[in-house]
Amino acid sequence: MTTVFGRLTVAGVGLVGGSLAGAVREAGLAGEVVGFGRQEANLRLALERGLVDRVTRDPAEAVRDADAIVLAAPLAACPELAARFRTLARPGTLLTDVGSVKAGVVAALEQRWSGVGPVVGAHPIAGSEEAGAGAARVDLFRGRCCILTPTAATDRQALARVRALWEGVGARVEEMVAEEHDQLLARVSHLPHLVAYALVAAVVQTGGGRDPLAYVGTGFRDTTRIAASPAGLWADILLTNADALGAALGEFRAAIGQLEAAIAARDAGALERTLAAAQTARQRLERAG
Amino acid sequence: MTTVFGRLTVAGVGLVGGSLAGAVREAGLAGEVVGFGRQEANLRLALERGLVDRVTRDPAEAVRDADAIVLAAPLAACPELAARFRTLARPGTLLTDVGSVKAGVVAALEQRWSGVGPVVGAHPIAGSEEAGAGAARVDLFRGRCCILTPTAATDRQALARVRALWEGVGARVEEMVAEEHDQLLARVSHLPHLVAYALVAAVVQTGGGRDPLAYVGTGFRDTTRIAASPAGLWADILLTNADALGAALGEFRAAIGQLEAAIAARDAGALERTLAAAQTARQRLERAG
Repeated sequence: MTTVFGRLTVAGVGLVGGSLAGAVREAGLAGEVVGFGRQEANLRLALERGLVDRVTRDPAEAVRDADAIVLAAPLAACPELAARFRTLARPGTLLTDVGSVKAGVVAALEQRWSGVGPVVGAHPIAGSEEAGAGAARVDLFRGRCCILTPTAATDRQALARVRALWEGVGARVEEMVAEEHDQLLARVSHLPHLVAYALVAAVVQTGGGRDPLAYVGTGFRDTTRIAASPAGLWADILLTNADALGAALGEFRAAIGQLEAAIAARDAGALERTLAAAQTARQRLERAG
Repeated sequence: MTTVFGRLTVAGVGLVGGSLAGAVREAGLAGEVVGFGRQEANLRLALERGLVDRVTRDPAEAVRDADAIVLAAPLAACPELAARFRTLARPGTLLTDVGSVKAGVVAALEQRWSGVGPVVGAHPIAGSEEAGAGAARVDLFRGRCCILTPTAATDRQALARVRALWEGVGARVEEMVAEEHDQLLARVSHLPHLVAYALVAAVVQTGGGRDPLAYVGTGFRDTTRIAASPAGLWADILLTNADALGAALGEFRAAIGQLEAAIAARDAGALERTLAAAQTARQRLERAG
């Protein structure tokens, strides 16, 4: 595999950043991978697990002579991180990210990074409810989709390098307008997370003396697995993508309402048809692997 | 293991009935297990897989000399099946079921079976999105909860035999008033199913030229897995438990509304606290296995 970057700095070596760092090292896509973060223990773990070549909590040391910086911190922290790095990075340093919301974030990064180097927005659709360098896996992105969201300002060569990085760790790379990405992800990821958290909240609030969670089967477990995801990270994502999420919630409410109307009318035929359409779609997804 | 029943007839050898039949045979809990059903191919499969000793599509042959009959057909079909069997069964035959909704169903069975023998309502909380004898597994109930819902009319000896049956196949048996069962299950099972179907319906209805399902991650897959469950079976369950489900939906809407209000107010603290409470509850469930 050809080296894509000389020195690559990953800011935030948690589940996604740590997995990317480790996968980049394994594939030899960078001459050196530097892990930057705030938590000493997590950085040490990333180093011990061989995800990075070295670690630092010093921003200046982190970005010195970096060819590219990957922001893998929580969404809300990224523009601020970019602002901190801008005076420390050498001219031409490529800035990219892994955030689950793109439009506003990429615009903010372009603004913070103007005059420094190119910016490329990226979002690998991969993760789990776990967090931290301990949960990182070098195969996390293999076969997964990574969406790049170039803007009118995006440098084409920088875009090609970020594409090479993600393809190098096994992802299928696709380009999309940032707003379209945000609407899509609101539906396939952010809404399901909101729903899973709400399902758990609704069920545990049920009174009656019994613990409802003692009676759940595999269905409830699967449906709410992602409600074990870090609350802070997801508060951040839901707030950042509030508009698209609001629209997705409207569609979800309409779908619930349609089922509820069939139940209220005791219209078994209509209810079964609506459920069957969803069943067919979900089975198609199962077959697609 | 002591034999609990001489001849046990399982009416409906699908996922739940087939698994019970096979587990009963394996544990030697019945002298003979007879599979009754409508579909020749499914009955043949149950026989080939060794889930039953013999199969029949003839109701008279199915219940002749049966000590007990387990109704494992779709909910709506159970009272009708009981009515068909009543003139064919010998006096004293125990009637039990595996239905996901209990109050109305058990009352209907008691009425249809009056003068024949004892009735015991049962519901093993186990299953999957799959269906049919091909999906049956003799370990399906191991370690799972099975709820019995005795009424004022329930014969205590019959109750003890049904308990022995479920404990014999590895379930933890608990007794509960039928109405309480229905309210509990509306929350931990029926609502999550409705939500999963609605999530898929909302997402596939999203237009825009792209197939949203091509962009889903493991989160969406898990959250909607149970939307691949048989639509007819679930239309039946949702309709039968409509009242309790309506109440559960109200609680779910309130939980969604609380999250939405925090997002609309851009109140990151309130949003994170609400998500964190759900996260903690869900993680507790994870640890409980």
